[in-house]
Amino acid sequence: MNRNELYANIKRKRSFLCVGLDSDPALFPAHIAALEEPIFEFNKAIIDATVQYAVAYKPNLAFYEAEGAAGWAHLEKTVEYIRKKDPSVFIIADAKRGDIGNTADRYARAFFGKMDFDAVTLAPYMGRDSVEPFLKYEGKWSIVLALTSNPSASDFEMEMYEKVVQKGMEWGTPDNLMFVVGATRPEKLAEIRQLCSDHFFLVPGVGAQGGTIAEVAAAGMNDTCGLLVNMSRNIIFAGRGEDFASEAEKAARGAAFEMSQYIR
Amino acid sequence: MNRNELYANIKRKRSFLCVGLDSDPALFPAHIAALEEPIFEFNKAIIDATVQYAVAYKPNLAFYEAEGAAGWAHLEKTVEYIRKKDPSVFIIADAKRGDIGNTADRYARAFFGKMDFDAVTLAPYMGRDSVEPFLKYEGKWSIVLALTSNPSASDFEMEMYEKVVQKGMEWGTPDNLMFVVGATRPEKLAEIRQLCSDHFFLVPGVGAQGGTIAEVAAAGMNDTCGLLVNMSRNIIFAGRGEDFASEAEKAARGAAFEMSQYIR
Repeated sequence: MNRNELYANIKRKRSFLCVGLDSDPALFPAHIAALEEPIFEFNKAIIDATVQYAVAYKPNLAFYEAEGAAGWAHLEKTVEYIRKKDPSVFIIADAKRGDIGNTADRYARAFFGKMDFDAVTLAPYMGRDSVEPFLKYEGKWSIVLALTSNPSASDFEMEMYEKVVQKGMEWGTPDNLMFVVGATRPEKLAEIRQLCSDHFFLVPGVGAQGGTIAEVAAAGMNDTCGLLVNMSRNIIFAGRGEDFASEAEKAARGAAFEMSQYIR
Repeated sequence: MNRNELYANIKRKRSFLCVGLDSDPALFPAHIAALEEPIFEFNKAIIDATVQYAVAYKPNLAFYEAEGAAGWAHLEKTVEYIRKKDPSVFIIADAKRGDIGNTADRYARAFFGKMDFDAVTLAPYMGRDSVEPFLKYEGKWSIVLALTSNPSASDFEMEMYEKVVQKGMEWGTPDNLMFVVGATRPEKLAEIRQLCSDHFFLVPGVGAQGGTIAEVAAAGMNDTCGLLVNMSRNIIFAGRGEDFASEAEKAARGAAFEMSQYIR
């Protein structure tokens, strides 16, 4: 998917919502937990309920890996299901990978070859070698961590993020590279938007972590929207009982309605 | 495993060799590639051939993920096989994970709960939150990237590694935290050993990437050896035909023989 297609989907759905599939079996409703493939069944119900409001989905790999090979199989089925359900949806592997060239090449193959993700999140610590193999896939995206939403972003990120954004802009283009910029520090989001006018930002930290859609839109939008705002727990665990899917639908609809007001 | 046990194994085997299981099916001998579970069968043969010379094995996750859920199953079987073959072996998931607390917690569960790894490699970019959940597992280890062996370590690592080592020493202890320090810059390895006298270093970059055992031993050893030197391609693909296992055995024996000369 290229940037124009992504922007067209945002305008069509009047939403820049990314639904984070942090699908933790410990939080599933009892009737889902009892099924044979609980993670996949949970995701399927969430996708059916939210796909008209979501331009992107973001499975968080940790929740699948914690279930071993079976979890990985659920991940594969989830990606296939989203593709079939709505081919326009942008699918992000929240994997935060980062390794030397020959290894990064195999990770790229895992997410863009073996599975049909559109994008993968990448940790920049090891530098250019660890990102380039992903950029070779036409129509696929690298999403490089710049400034995340967690408290210990102050340990190293705070002094590195500017340089990461500058280097990232050299490595890729606004058509194949995005940055992760957290919602919890809107003044920094605005500052990074000044540095980098054209790239999309994937923005975590709205909801449970304290960021708001209004602040993110004010600080981070650009001419082609330029934002994918992720919400996970606030949507997928909005309800915890038999009605979890309709609660998720309500939460996604509410978020998309708020977003629609900011879309030109 | 604690540090004393690891050191005892090093003295007993007269080796600080870690064999990297970067098990790439494209490089397998034809008779292995034809089997039903090629990755597992390859690993099994390599482990059988090298276990008397190796104190550690390090599956590189990318090579398993590139094969999808089946690859993940081969990884699980490989860990079980190593445990059964020699319970004293230290098993490292070369995963380079790093994410916010609740997600890091699930990765820890994947590697230390679902699978029985002793250690996992971690990228430090997101800071303390991304390492702490791994340190809660008694007898398990976090191996934090400090200065890696790839060319683009110069992009960000070169100005960050001192601070990463200092912070890492605050987060963990010499009994639950190691650092990755590449073999390709022995002068930096010596400098980091000055900063950090007691922690073990996992050292990639010997062999194909240009580092040598002699330089690494001179620059990085401490009172309890303090080194796990990883070799991957030079051992597992030392031979590419029917005799690949005996070629791997020869290569591992040679490396261990050289290492034995440096062990007190």
